[in-house]
Amino acid sequence: MAVADNLFILCFLIIISCVNIPLAEAKIRRYKWEVKYEYKSPDCVKKLVITINGRTPGPTIVAEQNDTIIVELKNRLLTENVAIHWHGIRQIGTPWFDGTEGVTQCPILPGETFTYEFVVDRPGTYLYHAHYGMQREAGLYGSIRVSSKEPEPFAYDYDKSIILNDWYHKSTYEQAAGLSSVPFQWVGEPQSLLLNGKGRFNCSLLTTPSTNVASVCNATNPECSPYTLIVIPWKNLPGHNMTVVEADGHYVEPFVVQNLFIYSGETYSVLIKTDQDPSRNYWATTNVVSRNATTPPGLAIINYYPNHFRRSPPTNPPPGPLWNDIAPRYNQSQAIKARKGFIVPPAPTADRMIVFLNTQNTVNGQYRWSVNNVSFNLPHTPYLIALKDNLLHAFDQTPPPNGYDFKNYNIYNVATNTNATTSSGIYRLQFNSTVDIILQNANTMTVNNTETHPWHLHGHDFWVLGYGEGKFDMYNDPKKFNLINPIMKNTVPVHQYGWTAFRFQADNPGAWAFHCHIESHFYMGMGVVFAEGIERLGELPSAIKGCVRR
Amino acid sequence: MAVADNLFILCFLIIISCVNIPLAEAKIRRYKWEVKYEYKSPDCVKKLVITINGRTPGPTIVAEQNDTIIVELKNRLLTENVAIHWHGIRQIGTPWFDGTEGVTQCPILPGETFTYEFVVDRPGTYLYHAHYGMQREAGLYGSIRVSSKEPEPFAYDYDKSIILNDWYHKSTYEQAAGLSSVPFQWVGEPQSLLLNGKGRFNCSLLTTPSTNVASVCNATNPECSPYTLIVIPWKNLPGHNMTVVEADGHYVEPFVVQNLFIYSGETYSVLIKTDQDPSRNYWATTNVVSRNATTPPGLAIINYYPNHFRRSPPTNPPPGPLWNDIAPRYNQSQAIKARKGFIVPPAPTADRMIVFLNTQNTVNGQYRWSVNNVSFNLPHTPYLIALKDNLLHAFDQTPPPNGYDFKNYNIYNVATNTNATTSSGIYRLQFNSTVDIILQNANTMTVNNTETHPWHLHGHDFWVLGYGEGKFDMYNDPKKFNLINPIMKNTVPVHQYGWTAFRFQADNPGAWAFHCHIESHFYMGMGVVFAEGIERLGELPSAIKGCVRR
Repeated sequence: MAVADNLFILCFLIIISCVNIPLAEAKIRRYKWEVKYEYKSPDCVKKLVITINGRTPGPTIVAEQNDTIIVELKNRLLTENVAIHWHGIRQIGTPWFDGTEGVTQCPILPGETFTYEFVVDRPGTYLYHAHYGMQREAGLYGSIRVSSKEPEPFAYDYDKSIILNDWYHKSTYEQAAGLSSVPFQWVGEPQSLLLNGKGRFNCSLLTTPSTNVASVCNATNPECSPYTLIVIPWKNLPGHNMTVVEADGHYVEPFVVQNLFIYSGETYSVLIKTDQDPSRNYWATTNVVSRNATTPPGLAIINYYPNHFRRSPPTNPPPGPLWNDIAPRYNQSQAIKARKGFIVPPAPTADRMIVFLNTQNTVNGQYRWSVNNVSFNLPHTPYLIALKDNLLHAFDQTPPPNGYDFKNYNIYNVATNTNATTSSGIYRLQFNSTVDIILQNANTMTVNNTETHPWHLHGHDFWVLGYGEGKFDMYNDPKKFNLINPIMKNTVPVHQYGWTAFRFQADNPGAWAFHCHIESHFYMGMGVVFAEGIERLGELPSAIKGCVRR
Repeated sequence: MAVADNLFILCFLIIISCVNIPLAEAKIRRYKWEVKYEYKSPDCVKKLVITINGRTPGPTIVAEQNDTIIVELKNRLLTENVAIHWHGIRQIGTPWFDGTEGVTQCPILPGETFTYEFVVDRPGTYLYHAHYGMQREAGLYGSIRVSSKEPEPFAYDYDKSIILNDWYHKSTYEQAAGLSSVPFQWVGEPQSLLLNGKGRFNCSLLTTPSTNVASVCNATNPECSPYTLIVIPWKNLPGHNMTVVEADGHYVEPFVVQNLFIYSGETYSVLIKTDQDPSRNYWATTNVVSRNATTPPGLAIINYYPNHFRRSPPTNPPPGPLWNDIAPRYNQSQAIKARKGFIVPPAPTADRMIVFLNTQNTVNGQYRWSVNNVSFNLPHTPYLIALKDNLLHAFDQTPPPNGYDFKNYNIYNVATNTNATTSSGIYRLQFNSTVDIILQNANTMTVNNTETHPWHLHGHDFWVLGYGEGKFDMYNDPKKFNLINPIMKNTVPVHQYGWTAFRFQADNPGAWAFHCHIESHFYMGMGVVFAEGIERLGELPSAIKGCVRR
């Protein structure tokens, strides 16, 4: 039985990702989206959520390689702005449509219509989500599926997609206010794990009395009936071990898992064979790992046609892996290689290496996350505009540090001095240079505590060169880098007390966020910005400049 | 014992309004405000509220006549814009700083600092509050007190101010989402009535279970200890009948009341004598009238020094007037006249009369409020900018109607056809013309139901010419207009099944909202906009134009 293990959130699991219908030429695919607040009950608890055309998750964008996607987004949020990021789409030639508020565009005002237009140049499974404040948590996310023009290197009969998401009952405002408070109020564990926007909260757990009639839990609400994946038994395909064949838009040398570890911002395609007893249905489950969470598993039903799709499987849902067993997570990370025949070799050496120490800190009494002891603050004027139009006052001109005190810092201890500074400074990269990034994890401000952080790079894919436990050894560890068949990705975890190394080519003119994909961590400063080749860009669209005052 | 009866909300009762310290010349008074979300417990229930410099209500602006107020407002609301209206300040020469989103300015973006600068040209009691979406309900409001340079026509020893506010436990987003829903979800009655930001909710009434730990009720939280007005007994002043001496910044021919009816957006100054038994404290209470509300009275303590200020009065709070007894409310409206020696006579005749029928309607299944069957929609581009820069596409160019079907419409019945239309059209007034407005109330969409609406005019004061019951008689009622000593106001109620007539001079170049001051009613379309003398305005400040795209 397939078990998808969701570390944190907004991960994307596609049960066979790519449809193979060759078409003569690229198409233009137009979408009109209205974004607004509506009451929904994704896990049976009624809550105000942000919908796209009345739905959360929003409509799936389905396209073919090289198609142009045009999304006309109308903001109907009353007093709240919005921006949407197309996660995994590199935006080559259109860096202003990356949708990252404060980095590539001003936010879209209430009443305004903003048109995103970009090419999906590579087949694969991607996602989109709000990239402003903590709006993603409010339900503003969805899937992008880009099919290939070429035959795929594996066969299947049909495909389904599942998008995973953590779900909180507090509003994003309440979450953000708590994170900024002194004393700090953590958002806590999610109340539910959603599969394709559906979960099931145990209504009897609602204990705090409230005057808020909106907080009603109704277990019979059809909005929270479990997601059902209907399969036809004995077809020559999906089976309950999963064969991983794609990740973040790149073919993977196939490998078989029972549990797939997915980190927030990652996407995978797996093959499943429907070769089990066809007289019953099966559970698919998703669990939290890496933290000792109280969140119950997210459940979907794999429905063996013609059994009734609501018929409960006769066995208990399979247990997830142990939350604190780190070895299988390292093993999976290290098992993923580029598929033979589809290997894109990295440059053999890097022009620059930057080490990012991941720490939890305090700044003026507030809890923050930092890299190299600098906690990131987004400026009001987006970097892309500030850089192109030479608005040097718009952000701190001092670049943040390239590393930390490798020699003396003990990654297994709480830092001697947990104070950090904040900055809006950025890393300026030589255009087309090769850059190595080492993510170095460390202890948090709690003794014997460290967290997994999934880091997402905008505007690029990178080669994953290696993972390790402990402190990265600048001399010996690079010798072990995989330069033969590294997988390319846009999101990668750094494991607890471990390091992760990757390489990328700074060949996409623009300003690009690189940050922990846990929304609350980025909100608390866990991110940086890279800029490269700005001088190669033509004039920026005026539509992205709405917040810039001269 | 003084009883303040609050009809709906955000009313302002000043126990003596004006301090008499003559100063040589006008001053500049600078304020730096940070607007953000914080958890507060104004009525003992913890809720996310919008604060100014950590407070709700925000800081009181205290100034002298002809001072210049400069408020540097920094928006720290994360993803939400803001705009603040200076209620009762006419903004002569500065119509762009009226703070009305969609009418006089674009909203202020998160991270942005916007500077309001205006002259308080007239002594009196005013208020300020958000004028964007339903942000006022989130706690964004406060007081403005402008003292006179001239001696006042009454004596007192000292002064205190009280600002009244309705308080809801639902967030403004939840309220607005309900109001826009099909089926309609009314915001309901307020959970508490606040006096100077303090109320006291009965925690045992929290019955709906919730996962939301924020909805915690703590009756011992000092934030919700009752407001205490400390008085010194037997001083020659405050007494427990109230002598009304000022309203909306104009001296009133003094009259004595036990209960003062205050409608949302109104301000009053009253004299009170502390001539009661000095060995005890007293209750001051505020109640809802006009609707059969379940909201408990708002309570403050009048503390007779040196009794302990927390000592509970030994008697029960006085009961409010009957919610459905309309006669005393008409009586009070009709009792208010301009004070002898301070009468500003109105023009003897009007150049134009506009009748506004107030009705409840449906538009595409949504519940709405309308005037003359047109429900108001704010455009994205503020009128002031659209008119000055001749952006004719920015709003409907058809002016809304000057009246309704006087002959056939039965104001005591539900309308035969409750459908209305929406429009962003406006009333263009001849500069310096004299305009009469007749507010005509009517039945709602419920049989035998009508509501009181307090209408607020921006940018002007008006002469209140008369009130009446039933349908306004175009031929006979104008003969009864008070042209001798009408009070000037900026907010006036139209009573149930009644009419209210006023006159104003269209002598303030700009675009000015005129609307029901119940925030949810304006949100649902109960408003219009007047424009006059736009051609006389110089260039508009670019800071107000942030949302305008060319």
